[in-house]
Amino acid sequence: MSGNTFGKLLQITTFGESHGASIGGILDGMPAGLIIDLEQIQNELDRRRPGSSEITTKRTEKDLVEISSGVINQTTTGTPIGFRIENTDAKSEDYDHLENSYRPSHADFTYDKKYGFRDARGGGRSSARETACRVVGGAIAKQLLKKSNNTEICAYVERVQDISVPFPPKYFDREVIESNIVRCPSPDIADRMIQRIREVRNSGDTVGGAIVVVARNVPAGWGEPVFDKLNADIAKALMSIPSVKGIEIGSGFSGTLMKGSEHNDAFDLNKKGEMYTTTNHSGGIQGGISNGDEIIVRIAFKPVATIQKAQNSINKDGSKIILEGKGRHDPCVLPRAIPIVEAMVALVLCDHLLRQRSARL
Amino acid sequence: MSGNTFGKLLQITTFGESHGASIGGILDGMPAGLIIDLEQIQNELDRRRPGSSEITTKRTEKDLVEISSGVINQTTTGTPIGFRIENTDAKSEDYDHLENSYRPSHADFTYDKKYGFRDARGGGRSSARETACRVVGGAIAKQLLKKSNNTEICAYVERVQDISVPFPPKYFDREVIESNIVRCPSPDIADRMIQRIREVRNSGDTVGGAIVVVARNVPAGWGEPVFDKLNADIAKALMSIPSVKGIEIGSGFSGTLMKGSEHNDAFDLNKKGEMYTTTNHSGGIQGGISNGDEIIVRIAFKPVATIQKAQNSINKDGSKIILEGKGRHDPCVLPRAIPIVEAMVALVLCDHLLRQRSARL
Amino acid sequence: MSGNTFGKLLQITTFGESHGASIGGILDGMPAGLIIDLEQIQNELDRRRPGSSEITTKRTEKDLVEISSGVINQTTTGTPIGFRIENTDAKSEDYDHLENSYRPSHADFTYDKKYGFRDARGGGRSSARETACRVVGGAIAKQLLKKSNNTEICAYVERVQDISVPFPPKYFDREVIESNIVRCPSPDIADRMIQRIREVRNSGDTVGGAIVVVARNVPAGWGEPVFDKLNADIAKALMSIPSVKGIEIGSGFSGTLMKGSEHNDAFDLNKKGEMYTTTNHSGGIQGGISNGDEIIVRIAFKPVATIQKAQNSINKDGSKIILEGKGRHDPCVLPRAIPIVEAMVALVLCDHLLRQRSARL
Amino acid sequence: MSGNTFGKLLQITTFGESHGASIGGILDGMPAGLIIDLEQIQNELDRRRPGSSEITTKRTEKDLVEISSGVINQTTTGTPIGFRIENTDAKSEDYDHLENSYRPSHADFTYDKKYGFRDARGGGRSSARETACRVVGGAIAKQLLKKSNNTEICAYVERVQDISVPFPPKYFDREVIESNIVRCPSPDIADRMIQRIREVRNSGDTVGGAIVVVARNVPAGWGEPVFDKLNADIAKALMSIPSVKGIEIGSGFSGTLMKGSEHNDAFDLNKKGEMYTTTNHSGGIQGGISNGDEIIVRIAFKPVATIQKAQNSINKDGSKIILEGKGRHDPCVLPRAIPIVEAMVALVLCDHLLRQRSARL
Repeated sequence: MSGNTFGKLLQITTFGESHGASIGGILDGMPAGLIIDLEQIQNELDRRRPGSSEITTKRTEKDLVEISSGVINQTTTGTPIGFRIENTDAKSEDYDHLENSYRPSHADFTYDKKYGFRDARGGGRSSARETACRVVGGAIAKQLLKKSNNTEICAYVERVQDISVPFPPKYFDREVIESNIVRCPSPDIADRMIQRIREVRNSGDTVGGAIVVVARNVPAGWGEPVFDKLNADIAKALMSIPSVKGIEIGSGFSGTLMKGSEHNDAFDLNKKGEMYTTTNHSGGIQGGISNGDEIIVRIAFKPVATIQKAQNSINKDGSKIILEGKGRHDPCVLPRAIPIVEAMVALVLCDHLLRQRSARL
Repeated sequence: MSGNTFGKLLQITTFGESHGASIGGILDGMPAGLIIDLEQIQNELDRRRPGSSEITTKRTEKDLVEISSGVINQTTTGTPIGFRIENTDAKSEDYDHLENSYRPSHADFTYDKKYGFRDARGGGRSSARETACRVVGGAIAKQLLKKSNNTEICAYVERVQDISVPFPPKYFDREVIESNIVRCPSPDIADRMIQRIREVRNSGDTVGGAIVVVARNVPAGWGEPVFDKLNADIAKALMSIPSVKGIEIGSGFSGTLMKGSEHNDAFDLNKKGEMYTTTNHSGGIQGGISNGDEIIVRIAFKPVATIQKAQNSINKDGSKIILEGKGRHDPCVLPRAIPIVEAMVALVLCDHLLRQRSARL
Repeated sequence: MSGNTFGKLLQITTFGESHGASIGGILDGMPAGLIIDLEQIQNELDRRRPGSSEITTKRTEKDLVEISSGVINQTTTGTPIGFRIENTDAKSEDYDHLENSYRPSHADFTYDKKYGFRDARGGGRSSARETACRVVGGAIAKQLLKKSNNTEICAYVERVQDISVPFPPKYFDREVIESNIVRCPSPDIADRMIQRIREVRNSGDTVGGAIVVVARNVPAGWGEPVFDKLNADIAKALMSIPSVKGIEIGSGFSGTLMKGSEHNDAFDLNKKGEMYTTTNHSGGIQGGISNGDEIIVRIAFKPVATIQKAQNSINKDGSKIILEGKGRHDPCVLPRAIPIVEAMVALVLCDHLLRQRSARL
Repeated sequence: MSGNTFGKLLQITTFGESHGASIGGILDGMPAGLIIDLEQIQNELDRRRPGSSEITTKRTEKDLVEISSGVINQTTTGTPIGFRIENTDAKSEDYDHLENSYRPSHADFTYDKKYGFRDARGGGRSSARETACRVVGGAIAKQLLKKSNNTEICAYVERVQDISVPFPPKYFDREVIESNIVRCPSPDIADRMIQRIREVRNSGDTVGGAIVVVARNVPAGWGEPVFDKLNADIAKALMSIPSVKGIEIGSGFSGTLMKGSEHNDAFDLNKKGEMYTTTNHSGGIQGGISNGDEIIVRIAFKPVATIQKAQNSINKDGSKIILEGKGRHDPCVLPRAIPIVEAMVALVLCDHLLRQRSARL
C-alpha cells in the first residue's frame, strides 16, 4: 500500500535504495510452464545499465540479476519469482554534503516532508536505480507476451530537445534502434541527437525529449472498461517512471485539433475481406480496450535535474545556499529509459492478458 | 478486479449502464465525522448534467442523487456511502439499428471482442453516463479536502480546437469559470469557443480541446515514491475518463525543450523568510510527492466520436455498411467534463491524504 | 479499504445500515455470458428473510432484490452487477433508548471507540442485516459454479447447543435440509432443536450451535499456496459472518488427537482405476489447494447477544445502567445463517475458480 | 494476486522454495522513524529455526536474515524493507524418488493439478520453510506494536495430542514459555508433552495439538466492521499457516453450548470507576472491532504429514506405490510454530493499527 507494488494479476513488488547493499523484487502471478530465457533478462538490464556509453552516467554497475525462486529447469513454476541485483559502485561520500540540502526539482524536499527525514545517499529510494527492477519484471513479462500472442513492444527516442524523427510513430525492429547509442531509429538524426547531448553535457547541463513506444500484435479485447482502461493503466505505468511529465495515446494533444469526422478511425475491409481501420488515431485502444491495432504512446521526459552547475537553493534549516554540481549522472536519460518504458508497457499488457481470461464464461 | 473500483484507502466502486434502470456506486473509506453538504453534491452533478445548455446533448436527465447509507444527520459514519441516480430519459430505440454495427472510434467493436456480445442500448457501460457516479464520489472527496487542508480543485476549458486562453495555467475561482456555458475563464475567448462549437454542431460534426485542472493548498508530502506516485495516480485517474488522449503534468511536453538548468525549480525565500520555488515546472509534484505548490495538469480530449454524418463502417458479420448519425450527443464534451476532471483529481488527492497518515511513526 | 469489499477477481462490495432506506451492493468480476436465474437469487434471499418462521425475529422484510445493471436478457454482460434491497420494516424508535448505552457483546462500544459515534438505529452497519447482500452475491456465484463445474454447496444446522446430528458431516440435498424450519438434515433431531429454541426464546434467552457446510464437485487445483490458501480464504469469509467464533476445516480440532499415520489421507484406486483418498481428514484441501474431495467446514455460532432479559451495563458517560431487553431479534440465528454460510463459500470458490484461470501458461 | 502478499496497509510479500538458493520477502508500508532492533528479528527467527532441539527436524539452517533496504541507522525510512535468508542445508537428493509420487496429505497432488507440474525438491514452495519470512515480517511488526501501544503478543503450546494445560487461556511472559523446548507455560505438563513427542518420533510417527495466542494492550477500535473484521483477518492469517485445521476466537466452539445470558460479556466499573467486562467470551473483539480486552485465539495443528513409516499411495501415472519414509522433518511442529503464529497476529494487528488511522476525520 506504500506503492511499491504494481499490477493486479501479475504483480511486481520492488525494494532497494541507490546505495544500499542491493535492490530487487518479486514478480508474482506468472503462470506456470513458461520457458524463460535468462540471457534475455540480462540483455534487457544491459540496455538500461549505467556506464554503457559516453552519453550516460559514469557510475558503473554490472547489474547482474540473480533469480532466487519461481523458476526451475528454466521454466516458471507459478510461484513468485524473487530476484536481486547488487549495488557495487555506490559512492555515498559524494552525497555527504547533500544530507541537509534540497536539490532543486529533486525529491529531497518532498521526502523530508513525507517521512520526516530521508536516506540521502545517492537519492535513496528516489533514485532511478529502482527502475532496474522494473526492467527485470518487464523482461519476463515480454517473454509471456511473445509466447502467448507474439506480442512485441518496441520503444525508441523520437526527440531530444527539438531534434526529432518524422511523424507518425511506427513499430521498428529493435535492431534498428540499437544500432546507435541514443536509440533513435534514424541514424542521421541519431548523430544530431548525440551531438546535442555532448554539447549539453560539456556545458554541465542536461536535456530531455520524447520517447515513443509501440506494441504490436496485441489482440483485441484487453483492458477493463471503466477505471482500469488499458490506456489508463499504461498512463499510470509510464507516468510512474522518474522524469516523465506527459503521456499521449494515439493522436494525443494533436488530435484535439481535428473534428470528429476527421479523427474517427473508419472501419474498412482489406483485400482478403478482413476488417481494419483506415487510420489509428485511437492508438490501438477504444473504450479502454485494445482493438488489435498497434498501441502507440508518446512520453515526455524532462531534462535531468542533476546538473554540473552551481544553483541557488536552501537547506533543511531554511537558509539560502549555493549547491555545487557533484556526483555522477546522465546528461540525457532517454536512451537508458527505453528498456524501462518497454518494461512498464509489458507489465501492463501481461496483467491485462491474464485479466482477460476472466472476462467470459 | 474488473476495474470498476478506484482508489486504495478511499475507494469508489460504480455500476450502471446508460439505459439501465439506474446507475450508482459505493464510496468506501470516508472517515467518520465529516459534515456533508448534500446540496453541494447535487450542484456538482448539475454541472455535469446533460441538457443544461445549448451546446450539450439534448438528453435530459435530472440526475438526482439518492444517498442510501453511510451518512446520518448529514455526518459521515465511517461506513460505506451507497448512492444511486435513476436513468429517466433513455431512448433505447435510437440504438436498435446499432446492435450489429460498429460505430467508428466507439467501444462497440472492442466490447464485442472482450465479452462476446454487448449491451448496445446507449453504449451500455461504455457510455460516459457512468461518469456521473465519479462526480458524486468526487463531490464528497472535495468536502473532505476542503475541511482537512482547505484544498481546492478547479478545472477549466483551456482550449477548444485551436481557440485557447493564454499560457500559463493558473487557479481560478469557480465563479469565473461558471460565468459562461463553455466554462472558460476568459469571457471573450469563451464567446469564440461557443461560436466554434455551434458551427461544428450545425455541420453535424464534433470538436475536442484541452482542459486544465489546478489543485491548490495541497500540503507537501502526499504521494508514494515508486509506482503510486501522485502524478501517476492522477494520470491514471484522468486517462480513465472517456475521450481523454493525453496528460501533461507541470511543464509537460513543452518542458522537454528546456535544459535542466532552465527547467529546475529553484528554491528561494520570500520576504517573510518562507521557502518557495521561483518557478513551478514540476507542477507541484517532485519524486511523485506533492511539494506544496499548485498541482497543474493539462488534459487532451479528442472530438466526440458520435457525429451526425454518414460514415463508412462494418457490421458484426464483417459486411460494409453506411452508418447514419442518430441519437443525442454532445458536439463538444469539454464543458461537461470539467466536474468529472475535478472529481477524479479529488478522489486521488483524498486517497493520498489518507495514505499519508501512515507514512510516519 | 474500509473492509466492505470481499474477493480479488470476483469482488462484492456492500453498503447499508439496518434502518437506512436500503441496503445493496455491487458484484464485480462476473464473466460475461452467464444466464442468470433471477428467481433463484430471490429464493436464496427468502431463505435468509426475517419473519419466515416462528423461531426467527418478528421483523418482517420482503427482501425483494432489484438488479440495476450488469444483466441484459437474463445474461451477465461482464460489467458490474448493482443491486439493492429496500428496508421496509425498520422501527428505529425501538433503539432510541440505546443511543448512549452499550449493549453487552454487541458492537455498540467498539463502534464508538472506532468512529467516535455511531448510528444506533437497529445496530446500524453492525446489524446482520448486511448479510442479505452477501446472499445476493453468493446466489449469483452459485450459478456460475454450477454452470462451470457442477459445483454445489450445501450447509445445514449440525448442532443447536448440545443437540446434534451424528458425525461425520456429509453433503445433503437441499430438499432434506429445507424440510424443517431449523434446517437440520434429520427431522427427528430437528424437532428437538426447535423445541429447545422455543424454550430458550420463551425464557427471553438465546442459543447458538454449529453449522456444517460442504462443497462438492470442486475440481482439484483451486487455491493459492501461501497466504491465499483456499482454507484461509474460507476461514476469513466465514469468520466475517456476525456471531461466528470458530472454524474447523476437515478434521479440525478433533484431528489434533490423531497421529500422523492415522490422519494422513491415503491415496488408493477404485474399481475403475481412478484415484481417491480412503479418508478425507484434509477436508478437501491440501497445501491450500483443493484436491477434488468434498470441502467440509464446521462453523461455531455463539448465542445471539440481544436477549429479552435485564442486563447490567454502562452508558457512554461511564455510568452503570440496567438494560431492558427490547427490539426484535432471533432466539437462534443458525437457521437463517445457512444461506449466508453457503453464500460466503460460493463467493470464495468462484473467486478461486477465476484465479485458477491464470495458473498456467 | 497469486496469494504471496498479505495485508492491506502493511503488506508482506514473500518468495522462495525449500531448496532454492534463498527465501525472502518485502515488507512494505512500515511507517518511517521506527528504531528497529535487528537482534530481536534474529531472535524470532532463532525460535523458529530447525535443528534447535531434539524434538525438531534435523535439517540445520542458521536462518541468518539479511536486510537489504528500508532501514538506515537502524531506523525505518518508510520505504520497503527487503530481506532474505539463504538456504544452506538443502538435501534435494532426498526427494528425487518423490518427483512422480504423491505423498498422502501433502501438497504434491494438488500442486500438480494446479500448475501441471511441481518443484519436488523439499516440497518446493509448499514447504513450511516459507514461514521463516513471515517471522521476519512479524518481528518488525511486533516492534511497531510495542512502540505505538505497548501491544504484546504471546503464543504457547496449550495441548499436544491429549496433554494440555488447564483452561482458560491467558497471557504469559515469553520467559515462561521459552523455559522448555516445547514452549508450554507449565513445566510439568511440558515434560509430559516432550515425552509424548519422543515416543511418537521413535515410532516413526507424528503428532499435533493446539496453540493459544494472546494479544494484550490492543486498544479498542481496531478492525473493520464487515468483511475485514479483526477476527476474520486473524482467522485467515492463522489458517494460512501450514497444518492449521481450526481456529477459535474467544469462547469458540465451547461458547456455543452457553445461552446468550451466560455468554454476553457484561460491562461493569472497577474500583477506579473504569469500565471493564466481567468475562471475555468475545475474545477481545466485538462486531469485528477490538474492545481493549485481551484477544484470545486457539489454533488446531494437525499431525505432520511426513512420517517415517511405509504408506500406500499412488504416483503421477496412477499406479499404486509404497512410499518409504525419508527426509528430515519435525515429529511435532507446534514448538516451532509459536513464533509463526505470533508473527501472523502481529502482521494483522499492525495492518489494522494503520487502517484505524483513517477511521475518523
